[in-house]
Amino acid sequence: IFHWKSAKMACLSCLLEYGTVKIIVIRNKAVGSVFRLIQFLIILYVIGYVCVVRKSYQVKDSVISTVTTKVKGTGFTNISGLGAHVWDVADYNIPPEGESSFFVLTNMIITPNQMQSSCPELPDQSTICMSDSDCTEGSSDVRGNGIQTGLCVNYSETVKTCEVLSWCPLEIDTDLPENPLLAAAENFTVLIKNTVTYPKFNFHKRNILPDVNSSYLKQCEFNRITDPHCPIFRLKDMVAELRFYCIMVMFVKGGVLGILIDWSCDLDFPEHYCGPKYSFCRMDNKNPENNVAPGYNFRFAKYYKTTDDVETRTLIKSYGIRFDVIVFGTAGKFNIVPTIVNVGAALTILGLVSPVKSAVLGLGV
Amino acid sequence: IFHWKSAKMACLSCLLEYGTVKIIVIRNKAVGSVFRLIQFLIILYVIGYVCVVRKSYQVKDSVISTVTTKVKGTGFTNISGLGAHVWDVADYNIPPEGESSFFVLTNMIITPNQMQSSCPELPDQSTICMSDSDCTEGSSDVRGNGIQTGLCVNYSETVKTCEVLSWCPLEIDTDLPENPLLAAAENFTVLIKNTVTYPKFNFHKRNILPDVNSSYLKQCEFNRITDPHCPIFRLKDMVAELRFYCIMVMFVKGGVLGILIDWSCDLDFPEHYCGPKYSFCRMDNKNPENNVAPGYNFRFAKYYKTTDDVETRTLIKSYGIRFDVIVFGTAGKFNIVPTIVNVGAALTILGLVSPVKSAVLGLGV
Amino acid sequence: IFHWKSAKMACLSCLLEYGTVKIIVIRNKAVGSVFRLIQFLIILYVIGYVCVVRKSYQVKDSVISTVTTKVKGTGFTNISGLGAHVWDVADYNIPPEGESSFFVLTNMIITPNQMQSSCPELPDQSTICMSDSDCTEGSSDVRGNGIQTGLCVNYSETVKTCEVLSWCPLEIDTDLPENPLLAAAENFTVLIKNTVTYPKFNFHKRNILPDVNSSYLKQCEFNRITDPHCPIFRLKDMVAELRFYCIMVMFVKGGVLGILIDWSCDLDFPEHYCGPKYSFCRMDNKNPENNVAPGYNFRFAKYYKTTDDVETRTLIKSYGIRFDVIVFGTAGKFNIVPTIVNVGAALTILGLVSPVKSAVLGLGV
Repeated sequence: IFHWKSAKMACLSCLLEYGTVKIIVIRNKAVGSVFRLIQFLIILYVIGYVCVVRKSYQVKDSVISTVTTKVKGTGFTNISGLGAHVWDVADYNIPPEGESSFFVLTNMIITPNQMQSSCPELPDQSTICMSDSDCTEGSSDVRGNGIQTGLCVNYSETVKTCEVLSWCPLEIDTDLPENPLLAAAENFTVLIKNTVTYPKFNFHKRNILPDVNSSYLKQCEFNRITDPHCPIFRLKDMVAELRFYCIMVMFVKGGVLGILIDWSCDLDFPEHYCGPKYSFCRMDNKNPENNVAPGYNFRFAKYYKTTDDVETRTLIKSYGIRFDVIVFGTAGKFNIVPTIVNVGAALTILGLVSPVKSAVLGLGV
Repeated sequence: IFHWKSAKMACLSCLLEYGTVKIIVIRNKAVGSVFRLIQFLIILYVIGYVCVVRKSYQVKDSVISTVTTKVKGTGFTNISGLGAHVWDVADYNIPPEGESSFFVLTNMIITPNQMQSSCPELPDQSTICMSDSDCTEGSSDVRGNGIQTGLCVNYSETVKTCEVLSWCPLEIDTDLPENPLLAAAENFTVLIKNTVTYPKFNFHKRNILPDVNSSYLKQCEFNRITDPHCPIFRLKDMVAELRFYCIMVMFVKGGVLGILIDWSCDLDFPEHYCGPKYSFCRMDNKNPENNVAPGYNFRFAKYYKTTDDVETRTLIKSYGIRFDVIVFGTAGKFNIVPTIVNVGAALTILGLVSPVKSAVLGLGV
Repeated sequence: IFHWKSAKMACLSCLLEYGTVKIIVIRNKAVGSVFRLIQFLIILYVIGYVCVVRKSYQVKDSVISTVTTKVKGTGFTNISGLGAHVWDVADYNIPPEGESSFFVLTNMIITPNQMQSSCPELPDQSTICMSDSDCTEGSSDVRGNGIQTGLCVNYSETVKTCEVLSWCPLEIDTDLPENPLLAAAENFTVLIKNTVTYPKFNFHKRNILPDVNSSYLKQCEFNRITDPHCPIFRLKDMVAELRFYCIMVMFVKGGVLGILIDWSCDLDFPEHYCGPKYSFCRMDNKNPENNVAPGYNFRFAKYYKTTDDVETRTLIKSYGIRFDVIVFGTAGKFNIVPTIVNVGAALTILGLVSPVKSAVLGLGV
């Protein structure tokens, strides 16, 4: 028993004793002031960069978001061959629904009453022919419009081209209207409904803030100064915020416009300080000098059947603006673990000064 | 030669000699026990937080994922004016295909046989008129349905409204069916095919696990307890997991539902431990008190041509549930580099105790 | 005043004095060489891993990207019942437009002239019946095609099945063409327009590089060796880069193919070194052994009205390749803050050697 007690004492004394380094204090104004300065800079870095700028004492989380959109407005066109036509959202919003993206048709080339038949190709270097021997039956050029039948037929009174099996008559997409047909689209509005979640903090919020009521939502319109929380945006106001771009120019050839919603939040502050910040930017081509293949367009068709059961279609080469809603942001909230880790790391760097100092002194000695 | 050898020796001896600090051992139970406690906490932090919780000894990679979905089921409606109608996937899944998102139509307002013509606007404050002078030819309200013709015509026997050029008759969207027309959608199922890749580890896996065969896949249905690996989900089961929400209420006004697939994996364990974990959550509005602009709906149209070549359309304001499949996860695998870096950093913090101790002792002396 | 000056002096002298540890130099070749080696390894790590591999002296930013695509090419099919048919982009690209994703139809099962009526179910275990009592009026199987009428009718001369209300005639999807109907799709091309932004560095670039002009873009085609900067890709070339996969096999059952664009850039180099790097990979199923539920298909319908105002539709079960354009990358640029932080951390680890050395010596003594 005696031995055991003695051993326990020895062990305890071993655990509780500690070593410390003998420090010799030397007075040297030059070296001393340099190291005080370095320590000051490190403390400044810790407070300024780690705490204020990076907020390293916080746990961070990335936003999870859902977006739905609804466009409103009607436009009117009077295209020769098609007649007067009123366009509403079901007509110009194609496809009707997309995940955080929507398209508004602003300009188009319409080719109505296409039917599966054969017709002369559009004339260019490879399709102009003198006789049937210039055309190859069954061949199909990837940039052409159909499958060659092997015949050389009159395209116009002066030009002969190879005949193709295709949806005829072929679309002639060289004369795009210079004034956008649906110029009225500049007055369309879009309601953006966006719900965000920060799962780590169990934080949920909509961009339709709690103080917005139905009657306000029925008549409001986003304005940076007067209505910064209204989630209804007029198309021309969004483009107006992009300096350098004119909405009518964008409407002619099409484009992609980003609606950026920033939900960056410091959740150490009360919840109502955390709200959406909107901004807009041109996504497809910021450099107007490099304007090869500009704009945005795609083709779609509406299919019909005639009374004798033959399929016809109206082909629409549609130019317009695709709006991509991009939601981003990180939220931070105080947490003890990153605080300890970062303060620890900062103190470590602070501790670094001593060895460096020793090294410097060593050189000096 | 002698000198060179001597210089080499001097250099070597310089390289191989080292400095060490003189350590003075002091026995002080109070200070000693405090620093043993701090060292213990730091070691606990290193083992507990760095190794177990954060797994900092691993290299991490984010998931790359592809999702395809396929909905099955048929519903039946008997709407006045439209007659008996069976709905299958080509009818209710709009658009037919989306990247990791699909829509199931559950309720709708159908306006058949619309034609480009003119008709009285729906009555509200700005459209009710007494005479033609109250209407402006060519004007178009963004919240209206068309372009005013300038005439004031009878909307009903008692009310006159401005006439508009539009798709007529206009949709009257105030009487949304209170019982969802396609209530049968609760029994629809969706097969989700999801392939994930962790490029850094050359790891590929599907949510259809290797032990699932075709015959099981033909008849199984996801169930947390009995079939946790079946990738076929019944719509009502998914909504049932969301407490607070009733599927029929969601079906009336529509909504957005997230299908979350978590592929977080520790690849130090055998591959078959790495599998998908499914969860479901309401994405569009978690706060039932803030119910301004609730639900999810959009309009689309089916276009027809009459025998006299006039375009007609059936406009469908469709309410339903958009399912967003969200795949996330990080995988980790042991790697020597982060292990060294993190153990090094932890030891550094451990080393910090000495200067702090010295400082404390300095204060105490 | 005298006292104040004295106090100031004392304070200054306190600020400017410093402590240094007394270092005892011991010559021991074994221990010395080990620690020189450790220091060498740490310096190697700092230079090799931190500076060269991780480029920790740089600020990083993630890419923000926009993608638009345009497919070109025509195909020809001659399906019994449908006749000769030329397919162009408006026919085979469904839906016409998607955010960074497009679909090319390559194989299909067409069921024309479907009408809302009743017809016998396709025969399988649960639908074959002997008499009306085997069928339940109003019941609907999620894997079936419609709502049972309660009658048992002749499916063929030998088999009777329950009658269903549905779009009739039903689709028979068992005889998928073994040679893809639109095999010509292998020669289709796609133009991918991609604009990226690194917001932190105000860096914008397109994948159509500044030295590419319109006439080159009209005739070029991507080729790793001869045309690495042409953004026009031939479908068969992309599949050819995936070893193990044959394009015709993919065309029969469909699949998902990723077009990966890597914009990782070191912006300390001139801007023109930063360009897109393309690669392709199969996204849906890399493991040919686990081939349950292979391929990719979906159903869509084209709706018509007959002269007596009855709705008919053509149902198309479409197999094809969905192309997902995935843009990724991080850019880095020198910045003083991460440089200081990382060099500091590295020096700290270097400083660690001393305590470890002391500990080792302590054991040895």
